[in-house]
Amino acid sequence: MKQFFGLMVAVAFALPACAAAGATPQCEQWGVHEVVLAGPADGNPFVDVDLAADFADEANRRLHVPGFYDGEGRYVVRFSPPSAGKWTYRTSSNAPALHGKSGELIATAPTGDNHGPVVVKNGFHFAYADGTPYRPIGTTCYAWTSQPTELEEATLRTLAEAPFNKLRMCVFPKRYKWNENEPPLYAFEGEAPDRWDFRRFNPAFFQHLERRIVDLQKLGIEADVILLHPYDEGHWGFDRMSDEADDRYLRYVVARLAAYRNVWWSLANEYDFMLEKQESDWDRMIEVVDRTDPYDRLTSIHNGRVLYNHTNPRLTHASIQNGSAAEEAGRAVLYRDAYRKPILFDEIKYEGDIPSRWGNLSAEEMVHRCWECIVAGTYPGHGECYLADDDVLWWAKGGTLKGESPARIKFLAETLSIAPEAGLEPIDRLQYPNIVGQPGEYYLVYFGKEAPREWKFFLPRYELKDGDTFSVEVLDTWNMTVTPIDETFVVRRESEYVFVDKVGRSVPLPGKPWQALRITKIAQ
Amino acid sequence: MKQFFGLMVAVAFALPACAAAGATPQCEQWGVHEVVLAGPADGNPFVDVDLAADFADEANRRLHVPGFYDGEGRYVVRFSPPSAGKWTYRTSSNAPALHGKSGELIATAPTGDNHGPVVVKNGFHFAYADGTPYRPIGTTCYAWTSQPTELEEATLRTLAEAPFNKLRMCVFPKRYKWNENEPPLYAFEGEAPDRWDFRRFNPAFFQHLERRIVDLQKLGIEADVILLHPYDEGHWGFDRMSDEADDRYLRYVVARLAAYRNVWWSLANEYDFMLEKQESDWDRMIEVVDRTDPYDRLTSIHNGRVLYNHTNPRLTHASIQNGSAAEEAGRAVLYRDAYRKPILFDEIKYEGDIPSRWGNLSAEEMVHRCWECIVAGTYPGHGECYLADDDVLWWAKGGTLKGESPARIKFLAETLSIAPEAGLEPIDRLQYPNIVGQPGEYYLVYFGKEAPREWKFFLPRYELKDGDTFSVEVLDTWNMTVTPIDETFVVRRESEYVFVDKVGRSVPLPGKPWQALRITKIAQ
Repeated sequence: MKQFFGLMVAVAFALPACAAAGATPQCEQWGVHEVVLAGPADGNPFVDVDLAADFADEANRRLHVPGFYDGEGRYVVRFSPPSAGKWTYRTSSNAPALHGKSGELIATAPTGDNHGPVVVKNGFHFAYADGTPYRPIGTTCYAWTSQPTELEEATLRTLAEAPFNKLRMCVFPKRYKWNENEPPLYAFEGEAPDRWDFRRFNPAFFQHLERRIVDLQKLGIEADVILLHPYDEGHWGFDRMSDEADDRYLRYVVARLAAYRNVWWSLANEYDFMLEKQESDWDRMIEVVDRTDPYDRLTSIHNGRVLYNHTNPRLTHASIQNGSAAEEAGRAVLYRDAYRKPILFDEIKYEGDIPSRWGNLSAEEMVHRCWECIVAGTYPGHGECYLADDDVLWWAKGGTLKGESPARIKFLAETLSIAPEAGLEPIDRLQYPNIVGQPGEYYLVYFGKEAPREWKFFLPRYELKDGDTFSVEVLDTWNMTVTPIDETFVVRRESEYVFVDKVGRSVPLPGKPWQALRITKIAQ
Repeated sequence: MKQFFGLMVAVAFALPACAAAGATPQCEQWGVHEVVLAGPADGNPFVDVDLAADFADEANRRLHVPGFYDGEGRYVVRFSPPSAGKWTYRTSSNAPALHGKSGELIATAPTGDNHGPVVVKNGFHFAYADGTPYRPIGTTCYAWTSQPTELEEATLRTLAEAPFNKLRMCVFPKRYKWNENEPPLYAFEGEAPDRWDFRRFNPAFFQHLERRIVDLQKLGIEADVILLHPYDEGHWGFDRMSDEADDRYLRYVVARLAAYRNVWWSLANEYDFMLEKQESDWDRMIEVVDRTDPYDRLTSIHNGRVLYNHTNPRLTHASIQNGSAAEEAGRAVLYRDAYRKPILFDEIKYEGDIPSRWGNLSAEEMVHRCWECIVAGTYPGHGECYLADDDVLWWAKGGTLKGESPARIKFLAETLSIAPEAGLEPIDRLQYPNIVGQPGEYYLVYFGKEAPREWKFFLPRYELKDGDTFSVEVLDTWNMTVTPIDETFVVRRESEYVFVDKVGRSVPLPGKPWQALRITKIAQ
């Protein structure tokens, strides 16, 4: 990845990048190859000039890839080959200098940590395109890319040590309590705070954003890019652009960012709090993103009070704010039935100490909610709001994590990393909302706030037969310990619905909250 | 209603009913007026002959009303005037004897208990067309119209005393445990159990069904007519007709029944258990019903394991089987957000004592679930499965109710009957799932299985101001008592989120489960 970014800089203002070296250029599958062209710099190229390239591989798989104007007469078509092998392309443009340019590249096998983009797998779960499991546990630093360099780099250092593999982040800066600083760069030409030419983008702003996305990629973190948000309230006016400006902006940002394999689209944070927009605007903008993006990156939209209709087939997963649903798996699981897509609870309130009730969860409650989401067959998102003299709250600006939940979320992530690759599925969701796993093979049982001293061993009937044998470990999700139970459990059918241990044994438990069991079938 | 049914019988085989009397016939608004025509009896009129009538009132409101063949050369167009005043009509048919017949009628003001059909109101609630509130609390007697006359009449006597104002009932008979009797009548010509001519209906079957629907109407009960169901498994084969036969059947049944104002369409019970059908079949059949029905009767579809996508705009409400969601308002409320329609929990398991876990709730649990649904801003459905020597379980066959929940459900229904007409809305749904009402005016607080000895008076902030004064009554939902608290509560703002009693008082409670509070603003 890094090398292509370097190449782009190297070939700035030159003729097509891939022609530069003489030999056919190479690019890893799911990497980024840039076709760079020189073209008109007069007038307003952002609106006057259309550019795209049609790519095809030898099996005639075709992608129509939008290009963009990068300033100073420089045009780019940023391409991420979805498969290895030879790709050819030909440009089309209303500018003669950019039209009919053709070339080719070789997409080579991915190396290192390049597993491709994340895609939906098994209905409710995710994997990288190469099949490597991906279990999202995200966090939020909404405005981290609008901060001074030093703070942005501190955020990256924190993320490098943290358990999070997805980051919700806004394109635009944020205006809100504890967020009153102007950003170093703006997305449009003009004059801060609110005199913008929405017809002229600021390439430096986007180049910076792209570098940060690549920084995240190197850390194995998906960038859940929030395209619009309400935390502006007209200060800059990025929340109330015209339909035309919104659509132009969306096409531009998608043309620039879609090639980065760790990009996801989040149309908005709290979309319904943007009172200038109607629901039909969101429908339209989702369609603009979907039509522009040649790679079908993961796409969703995050709510305030009013859930978006996540049955919209252009949305790949449901991105839900609902702290209440994350309190209990029996609630969280219901969204799976309603949407039949992966359910990401991207906001379940924040660990912290601010006065607002959405930002003062205890660390224990944050960890608890993450576990409840997991045992519901859904995925949680972390966030943190501790008051700070410098107004740097992780939730919005990044910096350093102060809470006690991330270490425990790391324990959860490690637990998931050795769970079945097919994903954790509710086993008998309307009867036992605290049991998740793969029937017959693997179970997590989570007791939450209950503090039992024992648990009578039983499993829902699915995929079981008399004599199946299981090992049991007690997971203390707060103290991050795994305690194997010495004996094994052999099941017999007890009823139409459940199997129990054949001699009726129970699993001893420590009488404390936050305990879970990992029950694993022993091969025989 | 009754008189029109009588008229239809009187004018059987005659020329158009409304022409018979010489004077312009009259019919109550929302009643039934029948245009009866004599036509061809040879060939197969059920498939050979198309008949419809276009009705228009003096404001040029138009309805295209399908007709049907009722056997022995008799054709009927059954019309329910949606507004009072003069209506004219003209028939169209491919049979010359039925084509171009015109006439008129006067729709008179409704009388007595005729409040019109039930329609959706305020997004999540219902009312009769004349504005009278309707708060559905249904029950099920799936196959009650396929029983011997004496049993059917016993069912009606029971319903006359019961609190239920909606009945889920199948068109077709039921084959299942405790349901092994053949019905007196079948919907098609042919030979039981499985040699049917799906191209020829049995008018006597439908005439009987219609009588039973009118019987329910007289009792103030909505007939939630289940058009298809899986409890057949090929015994009769009504669960596995061809697409063509399904669609023809749906058009026929809608043409016959839609004019009865208490008819709702339930496409299926446990639609996803009908393994011969795909989801696209249900989409198609919902459309057939929607296109055929001139009155837009309430329409839904009930699930087994897989929720139908209730965002389908042709569905007026979500009809959900989920016992788990009804256990707790914090679960039940989530469907409101997902579907933005009235949520009817038409199956929350059954009070009873059968071995299957779906049919052995205690009466206390059944009542509890009904209350949880209500405080979620949704509506519950009752059902009862007590084993019986004669295999007459209320759930399917009707007869008599044996359980202890109906008396308590009557108490709940009475509570609702004096609640705000606008409907009970969650007040702060993601914070306090046990509080429902109309903010500032009226609240129900339900404590369920908790047994507190007191409750510190507070209300979510919406529509409150310092000094607002409230009366409080303690409702014992099981013992069916209402105990007023002598003192009144005067609120003051305590925080961004809640108001409390200005001197910090609590409401005393009896330390028993199943308690609720009714908190009502006192006019000042």
